Amino acid sequence: MIVVLRLGHRLGRDARISTHVGLVARAFGADFLIISGEHDKKVIESITNVSDEWGGHFDTVYKKKWEQCISEYKKKGFSIIHLTMYGLPIQNKINEIRKKKNLLIVVGGQKVPGEVYKISDYNIAITNQPHSEVAALAVFLHEYFSGTELDRQWKDASKKIIPQKRGKQVINQ
Amino acid sequence: MIVVLRLGHRLGRDARISTHVGLVARAFGADFLIISGEHDKKVIESITNVSDEWGGHFDTVYKKKWEQCISEYKKKGFSIIHLTMYGLPIQNKINEIRKKKNLLIVVGGQKVPGEVYKISDYNIAITNQPHSEVAALAVFLHEYFSGTELDRQWKDASKKIIPQKRGKQVINQ
Repeated sequence: MIVVLRLGHRLGRDARISTHVGLVARAFGADFLIISGEHDKKVIESITNVSDEWGGHFDTVYKKKWEQCISEYKKKGFSIIHLTMYGLPIQNKINEIRKKKNLLIVVGGQKVPGEVYKISDYNIAITNQPHSEVAALAVFLHEYFSGTELDRQWKDASKKIIPQKRGKQVINQ
Repeated sequence: MIVVLRLGHRLGRDARISTHVGLVARAFGADFLIISGEHDKKVIESITNVSDEWGGHFDTVYKKKWEQCISEYKKKGFSIIHLTMYGLPIQNKINEIRKKKNLLIVVGGQKVPGEVYKISDYNIAITNQPHSEVAALAVFLHEYFSGTELDRQWKDASKKIIPQKRGKQVINQ
């Protein structure tokens, strides 16, 4: 099971980035999203709406206490993977991480508390350059699933795209 | 040469997403970013500042007329790659695209004009699910470069991260 924990969400300012984090978590094969920071019902609603329409039963919840959340998953035997530009290169660690079946992937916002680096089993960098937590999560999951997530079929979808060379085709089913 | 064209930027609302698009373009090996839509000096400045600090000579410019921009690159022999959830799956097309050395990668915003689908040589989907242009660009470049972009060394960087198992280490050089 793959759970994503988004830290430090701020109302308004982070709405779009956190929504993108959630949609990426879902589209690239994570099972579940936890948002911490400020409680933003709108963000949770828009990720849930996408999941309802496009299939796959992806749930999003809010938890205030991220420390407790990480500890609980750790106790359950999940490996804690913190994505950070300061961490070890993904290309050196992904083979080892692929062997773990239960992951809690922690995705930071602007300021990540020092405890997160300590409590995590792996601090992993998707390049050691500043870019985007959205991109870091996508490339991490893409590497973890070795690209197989791209071929996934989505159960109980009411909308489905038929890929086109040009233009758009969406089936409502 | 890999150029990224960000369409339809809106002042305020798109500032963070377009900044992430720019930083991802740079970090994952593109050479140059063009932003279209509304002129946002702040976004251009923050991407340029990152490039100045972290190395690699990545330039960002604003162009009002995206149609003209696409036509010009087409005339120069660039392949036009439009990233869209409605397009053909990347996993079926990337081997063909990897043979092209000059790409203009078009990344849409909320509403992409129909002409973009027509003028593009490839409409490419990074999953046919709704997620994020930031993630789509990152995974596209990661696939295009077959992961080699992760090992890139950055020339003339004044800041450099020494990857750590835990914590942060940055060298100012």
